[in-house]
Amino acid sequence: MSNQQKKPGIEPLDLSHHFSRSSQKRAPNVLKEYYKYLRNPDMGNLAGGLPCPSYFPFEKLEVSVLRPDSLGHPSPPPPQHIHIPRSCKNAQNPLRTIDLDTALQYGGAQGYPPLHAWLKKLTTSIYHPNIPYLGGADILINGGSADGLAKVYELLFNPWDEKLNSVEEREGLLAEEFVYAPPLAQLKPKDVNVVPVRMDGEGILPFGEGGLEDVLEHWDWKRGKRPHVLYTIPRSEIYDICSRFDVVIVEDDPYWHLYYPSANAHPNQGRQNKNLNNTSPKSTGHPFLDTLIPSFLRLDTDGRVIRLDSFSKSIAPGCRLGWTTASPQICEQLFRITDGTSQQPSGFVQAVVLKLLAEGETGWGVTGWVRWLEGLRDTYQGRMIIMAQTLGTNRFFETPDGSHLELFTFSRPKGGMFLWLQINIHLHPLAPSFEPRRLMRALWTFCTQHPYRVLTVPGSDFAASEEVAAREGYRFLRFCFGAVEEGLLVEKSLAFVRACREFWRVEDGRVVEGILADEERGLVDGPDREMIGEW
Amino acid sequence: MSNQQKKPGIEPLDLSHHFSRSSQKRAPNVLKEYYKYLRNPDMGNLAGGLPCPSYFPFEKLEVSVLRPDSLGHPSPPPPQHIHIPRSCKNAQNPLRTIDLDTALQYGGAQGYPPLHAWLKKLTTSIYHPNIPYLGGADILINGGSADGLAKVYELLFNPWDEKLNSVEEREGLLAEEFVYAPPLAQLKPKDVNVVPVRMDGEGILPFGEGGLEDVLEHWDWKRGKRPHVLYTIPRSEIYDICSRFDVVIVEDDPYWHLYYPSANAHPNQGRQNKNLNNTSPKSTGHPFLDTLIPSFLRLDTDGRVIRLDSFSKSIAPGCRLGWTTASPQICEQLFRITDGTSQQPSGFVQAVVLKLLAEGETGWGVTGWVRWLEGLRDTYQGRMIIMAQTLGTNRFFETPDGSHLELFTFSRPKGGMFLWLQINIHLHPLAPSFEPRRLMRALWTFCTQHPYRVLTVPGSDFAASEEVAAREGYRFLRFCFGAVEEGLLVEKSLAFVRACREFWRVEDGRVVEGILADEERGLVDGPDREMIGEW
Repeated sequence: MSNQQKKPGIEPLDLSHHFSRSSQKRAPNVLKEYYKYLRNPDMGNLAGGLPCPSYFPFEKLEVSVLRPDSLGHPSPPPPQHIHIPRSCKNAQNPLRTIDLDTALQYGGAQGYPPLHAWLKKLTTSIYHPNIPYLGGADILINGGSADGLAKVYELLFNPWDEKLNSVEEREGLLAEEFVYAPPLAQLKPKDVNVVPVRMDGEGILPFGEGGLEDVLEHWDWKRGKRPHVLYTIPRSEIYDICSRFDVVIVEDDPYWHLYYPSANAHPNQGRQNKNLNNTSPKSTGHPFLDTLIPSFLRLDTDGRVIRLDSFSKSIAPGCRLGWTTASPQICEQLFRITDGTSQQPSGFVQAVVLKLLAEGETGWGVTGWVRWLEGLRDTYQGRMIIMAQTLGTNRFFETPDGSHLELFTFSRPKGGMFLWLQINIHLHPLAPSFEPRRLMRALWTFCTQHPYRVLTVPGSDFAASEEVAAREGYRFLRFCFGAVEEGLLVEKSLAFVRACREFWRVEDGRVVEGILADEERGLVDGPDREMIGEW
Repeated sequence: MSNQQKKPGIEPLDLSHHFSRSSQKRAPNVLKEYYKYLRNPDMGNLAGGLPCPSYFPFEKLEVSVLRPDSLGHPSPPPPQHIHIPRSCKNAQNPLRTIDLDTALQYGGAQGYPPLHAWLKKLTTSIYHPNIPYLGGADILINGGSADGLAKVYELLFNPWDEKLNSVEEREGLLAEEFVYAPPLAQLKPKDVNVVPVRMDGEGILPFGEGGLEDVLEHWDWKRGKRPHVLYTIPRSEIYDICSRFDVVIVEDDPYWHLYYPSANAHPNQGRQNKNLNNTSPKSTGHPFLDTLIPSFLRLDTDGRVIRLDSFSKSIAPGCRLGWTTASPQICEQLFRITDGTSQQPSGFVQAVVLKLLAEGETGWGVTGWVRWLEGLRDTYQGRMIIMAQTLGTNRFFETPDGSHLELFTFSRPKGGMFLWLQINIHLHPLAPSFEPRRLMRALWTFCTQHPYRVLTVPGSDFAASEEVAAREGYRFLRFCFGAVEEGLLVEKSLAFVRACREFWRVEDGRVVEGILADEERGLVDGPDREMIGEW
């Protein structure tokens, strides 16, 4: 957690006024006081309650891994092997030593020191070389973004309770109108006020009605405190508004490396740089990384940005491994929370991921890692194009009178693993007589039934508030092109179109009522496989 | 989370009145509603935001592991190899399938299903075959005991704040007078009242002054609510008192498998069974396990016991893997907390530990696992005996007048990795003129200095309250015989004795003041190695 090389710039702001009451009581780890004694190599450590590493039952761990240029390669090179020995005794530099005896021993909440050091260097010198404040950012390893975010919430929000607290005490979180649901559900136990901000295809709107500035400037204090945290992905113009209204920015960007330039017919090369930096920014040193949307960290003179990165979409979700980047003041607080809750993630995953990524005989190194990310981006982009083309060319329905009606519209995503379809449900023959949300629900259910069998997520699930869901959320369906086998991308996209066309032929409201009744009773037709059972 | 085979018994109590306000607001995972659709094998899952497992960069994982009978074996057998393939396509039973594609994909907060099933069976049919309530206990995988405990606290305690809340609202935790500090430190942010209960060598005292019944029956309501949670390790007679006063029992027993029968000169074989069960209990089927102190789970007709088990001391701490056993109602709540915070632990550690433990061509199986635990117990017991003999035979100091003064006393521990020395500091020549706590602090510091270099933990660090620390905690030092190389056990025990003898020769108070001044200024003499740095 030490401050490293000094950079030009000014000190980040003291943001302790945003910390929750419980965080203000969280003391540093008392055992830390003993660490100084352990620096002496002759010290006999009879203090720490550590088991003896010789009794760990693991002698060696070997992993056969793909090479960085494997994805999309017509004849991929053979896998390479990484191995982690039980012990590297007498290693010169503990930060370059990866062995089971240290990875599997108790360790500090900041994470496995060699992985911490490697990720800190990656984050501050390669991913985000332009962090402006003095001393630069620190990082803390976490167990994936959900874990990292839970700790950020613990730091920034006080719980609120209708029966115990007055409305004026209620705290708020600003979020995009449409947002992945679990991060908001995580706040429910604290009963934080979730305040949607209008968005367009680029993300949150800075200005205009319902935009960020409007919401903050015309805050209705009868709803509670003016929100002091924004949960978002980076977009220009937002930072200055947050700085003006003293809002902490939580930047959760798991798809950062999946940015699809192909989605922009007329890519606006200047967009990223125009607002995000007035002076010439440092290059990452990697052309691929330079094309990605830069983080708010680049503008963060105040030290108010907390960025969450995760290996879930770049290596594998089951790693449960990610890291948080923020000012040292915030990292120290998150360290204390980690120390009092989850502690660091498993040493297995930390050692394996580090051995895979770090420079060395068999590791990928930063260059290999960037190559891997680029291959991943290309591969997912290829999937996106397949699905977009299939849906795009089949989006029409020929009505009995021979005209062509557009069942849905969508834009190609600029990144990530999802296509968002806006269904033209108002064009359904039953639209005049049926509540449109129920008609959409019936279409969604119909798609899951025989013979279509397509499961998508209704847009309402992503609406930041019930008002947003009712106004327009219900009209959307989210399609993920990430997980299914590639062959199913076309097959299930066509099945979806067929389901829509069949549904558009329904002119008897009782049929729709029947579909809804099935769904409400929780009936799922067809064969059933049990997912959980006994060993 | 399903209830499995029905057992005779009665339903566990509804304990929801003990749940915190935030837990009562925690909704079940909204995405669960989609799981039923995924049971249909033809369903095209375009809903879940899952990355494609073909793009995980891992082809195969191999671990070379010790055999269960290796520890203490004069010529240990060669290691065996376990391997986890990328994929077991077409596996018949997903609960018997261990592969990287499933272990490294997103999964439910209950943990990796095959590991969950295996641990549930181990816990309910082998470790604790006598859980009395209807339906039996459930389990939830966690990231080690600190993580499991944080979630239990989140479930059971409301935060309290001096400025916002009245004293009557403050909640309390009962704990042994001497207790491992971090579990209490974890409660500081919620400002829970920690209430020490008197103990003897067996653990918490049920009756008598300062015992559990006394504290609860004569609770002084001006201190806050009567505590509703007890944090402890199992001991007889306690359960009934907790049931009478509606106290939830959190049983944190990481050293359960390290029970040393040798410590009892006259082992009271009947003790465990006398109070813990009136009817003849079921055997675990493993003689070694039958000798261990049974869990409170065995008596838990109410469903008020939450037990934490961990692999930290039986496999390796860096696994960050353990599990919580409790009634289904409590497990469901802990599931929701996990789902909204850390999610399940890393798939790497879950898959590796399961592959090591589960029955199969290369896995240890339950029998091998029990054999391993027994070997571990014997090995640590051997270390304990070495340290106890060295300290025991050298515990005297010859005074200038030729009499022999006992520097410290201790009992051999009945389990675990620690010896607790009570220092006879009142026999030091400076005792009449020096505050005894400061004299002890000086002795502790003196031991860390050249040429002794022995680091132990002062007993005050384990006192549940400042009152306990001042009354008697300060007189103890805790010695861990678990972590250092075996040769150091004698060497550092003798160094400690030499330091004591030298310290007893000090008759000038200014020397003691000098030692204290060094320590208070944070000076540590001798060479210094940097522990944290840059990659």
